[in-house]
Amino acid sequence: MAVHTSTFHISTRGMCDIHDITHQIEKDLQSTGLHAGILCVFVPGSTAGITSIEFEPGAVNDLKKAIEKLAPTNIHYDHDARWGDGNGFSHVRAALLGSSFSVPFSQGRMLLGTWQQVVLVDFDNRSRKREVVVQIFGE
Amino acid sequence: MAVHTSTFHISTRGMCDIHDITHQIEKDLQSTGLHAGILCVFVPGSTAGITSIEFEPGAVNDLKKAIEKLAPTNIHYDHDARWGDGNGFSHVRAALLGSSFSVPFSQGRMLLGTWQQVVLVDFDNRSRKREVVVQIFGE
Amino acid sequence: MAVHTSTFHISTRGMCDIHDITHQIEKDLQSTGLHAGILCVFVPGSTAGITSIEFEPGAVNDLKKAIEKLAPTNIHYDHDARWGDGNGFSHVRAALLGSSFSVPFSQGRMLLGTWQQVVLVDFDNRSRKREVVVQIFGE
Repeated sequence: MAVHTSTFHISTRGMCDIHDITHQIEKDLQSTGLHAGILCVFVPGSTAGITSIEFEPGAVNDLKKAIEKLAPTNIHYDHDARWGDGNGFSHVRAALLGSSFSVPFSQGRMLLGTWQQVVLVDFDNRSRKREVVVQIFGE
Repeated sequence: MAVHTSTFHISTRGMCDIHDITHQIEKDLQSTGLHAGILCVFVPGSTAGITSIEFEPGAVNDLKKAIEKLAPTNIHYDHDARWGDGNGFSHVRAALLGSSFSVPFSQGRMLLGTWQQVVLVDFDNRSRKREVVVQIFGE
Repeated sequence: MAVHTSTFHISTRGMCDIHDITHQIEKDLQSTGLHAGILCVFVPGSTAGITSIEFEPGAVNDLKKAIEKLAPTNIHYDHDARWGDGNGFSHVRAALLGSSFSVPFSQGRMLLGTWQQVVLVDFDNRSRKREVVVQIFGE
């Protein structure tokens, strides 16, 4: 049993910018040589999240619209009144979606569905360089 | 320390069909003989999710109604315009709920509350045979 | 590779009462002496959840308001019609947020962002003494 922790960086534009990070995670998994275990994808910070979706432009856009309804950009946020950085909606969205996603793997492959991709969602209101942590446990 | 990966299948009707899968997971856990560790329940695919709830018909129905408000069936989805399979709402719901659920166990039992069950939620718009992955780490 | 399971208790007031539990979790992590691995924070029960947020009063209040919209207190819940305990909204909220949160750690520290705290959200409609499970895997 071993644990491997790696990170990679991704440039994001914010405002619910959704990136398919499956391929990078698969590369990290393959480099460990582990065949069975669990993989935790984690984004440090309080204005981004990790989930999975069929990564095609229609579904991605539908998710953005649902999130806009869930925590709209154009309402008052107490966070903004205190800090003036204007990203109160980003904090609420990130807390609701969650910053952590765990996937089992077997025979060296994540057990995702055929049309299921792991995505980073950047909720911030500006461009960011995001660090993504991939931690892999297994044998 | 060992890792065990097992799967089981469950027939679902779709349209937010919610199934209590706690008993099946407990059986998988007991068959490993492990006493302390973590258990990851994962549903491959992009139109289903895993969470926990008090599995009684009232709360289950309340959850269905909240999900209908969160991503209604009767609005336009870009996914449908592209693919014509009519399950754009299913994709959005699954991305928001998440397809992965981790539970610690100790003395061979999941540390769930007395009235807390692990559930599979099938968001698709048709019947499916779902595979559920149960991965168990521990000693 | 080792697994450590510990619990702590926290008094909550309910009605979306949000507590920063980061410091307690860090203490648990330090007491294990492990330097790299994964930490699962879990709240048993079906009326509470775990997530992360920048724990400042503005963002915390914004999250409460978004949750009130997501599953309002003042609508009908079938759970209440059956059980009369009046916390149908609490069950729906907990099922949507999730009761489990996994964080990688490295060099003995959780890989959280600088302004990111792990929080317990108590959705129940009354005061509770909550147990929080912290399970730590690593080497």
